[in-house]
Amino acid sequence: MLKVTSPIILASKSPRRQELLTLMGLNFSVELKDVDESYPENLSAPEIAVYIAEKKAKAFDANPNAIIITADTIVAINGEILGKPKDHNEAQQMLGKLSGNKHEVYTGVSINHQGKIISFYDQTEVFCRVLNMEEINYYIDNYQPFDKAGSYGVQDWFGLTVVERLNGSYTNVMGLPTEKLYQYLLKI
Amino acid sequence: MLKVTSPIILASKSPRRQELLTLMGLNFSVELKDVDESYPENLSAPEIAVYIAEKKAKAFDANPNAIIITADTIVAINGEILGKPKDHNEAQQMLGKLSGNKHEVYTGVSINHQGKIISFYDQTEVFCRVLNMEEINYYIDNYQPFDKAGSYGVQDWFGLTVVERLNGSYTNVMGLPTEKLYQYLLKI
Repeated sequence: MLKVTSPIILASKSPRRQELLTLMGLNFSVELKDVDESYPENLSAPEIAVYIAEKKAKAFDANPNAIIITADTIVAINGEILGKPKDHNEAQQMLGKLSGNKHEVYTGVSINHQGKIISFYDQTEVFCRVLNMEEINYYIDNYQPFDKAGSYGVQDWFGLTVVERLNGSYTNVMGLPTEKLYQYLLKI
Repeated sequence: MLKVTSPIILASKSPRRQELLTLMGLNFSVELKDVDESYPENLSAPEIAVYIAEKKAKAFDANPNAIIITADTIVAINGEILGKPKDHNEAQQMLGKLSGNKHEVYTGVSINHQGKIISFYDQTEVFCRVLNMEEINYYIDNYQPFDKAGSYGVQDWFGLTVVERLNGSYTNVMGLPTEKLYQYLLKI
């Protein structure tokens, strides 16, 4: 059983990550740092997710006691990275790419504890049905997916009516691979 | 886009099914009928799920206007069907079987509309890590999974820390394959 005695700090403003950590049965506080989320161009999708999660972890001073958890989620399709859409047009383009295709979701996670940073990632394949433009506009207008990599949430209308199936972890697509995180926390 | 003009009736007391239908953006009311959930012994797991969903649908009188949705979820492991556990011991046995193994979840769905009943099912493979007895007892004592086929909920502590990955629909494991249901409702 997981018995964490150190205080846990989640460095993420994502309500989905906060909800998942709560459902894992963990007590935590939220602390945010401003981090530049740029990355070197030569990195692969999982390397980007881990690189940014580690950048977020390094933004915290070494804290001998607390367990600081950071994460970054990346959507990749045919080798192209989809970040958070800037506006309606970019969301439209991203959702058009996801329509009728498979894409991959990578979440990198870093744990900053006792002067060490441990990082890992998880990968999930996501298969979407074909969407028409009316559906794409309906979704953007009603769900405003501008805070989400790839312009969608797996837990909202899109996940329920467009995502046909997953291969991998569901919570990884939500933004935090809880099963792997649990195993890493067990080892602390 | 899905525009349902007939009133939808969900014949299920499962709060998870009610939540999923709401997240699909549908308005509905809940109406329950008592149905004997026994089934012929020679049926396969997906046949059982559809058989019981149809039994639930047939319990309603033909209603020319409403769309009545019923569902039944079945967990199968190595050819054995796991229903809802009667007590702590049975839950312990079921979770022991799931530990370290793959199992399948089948949800049968029936739509009773304009004198016809249309049925379908979806299948998801679920892979669980090894659980120890302390974890099994912790889960049963704290989550009381007695209303759930297979003794677990994919959306609670079990799904988040024990389920390593899925192959198929996540909402099917929750109890309602929303992507397929959406496609069937589009055709009405």
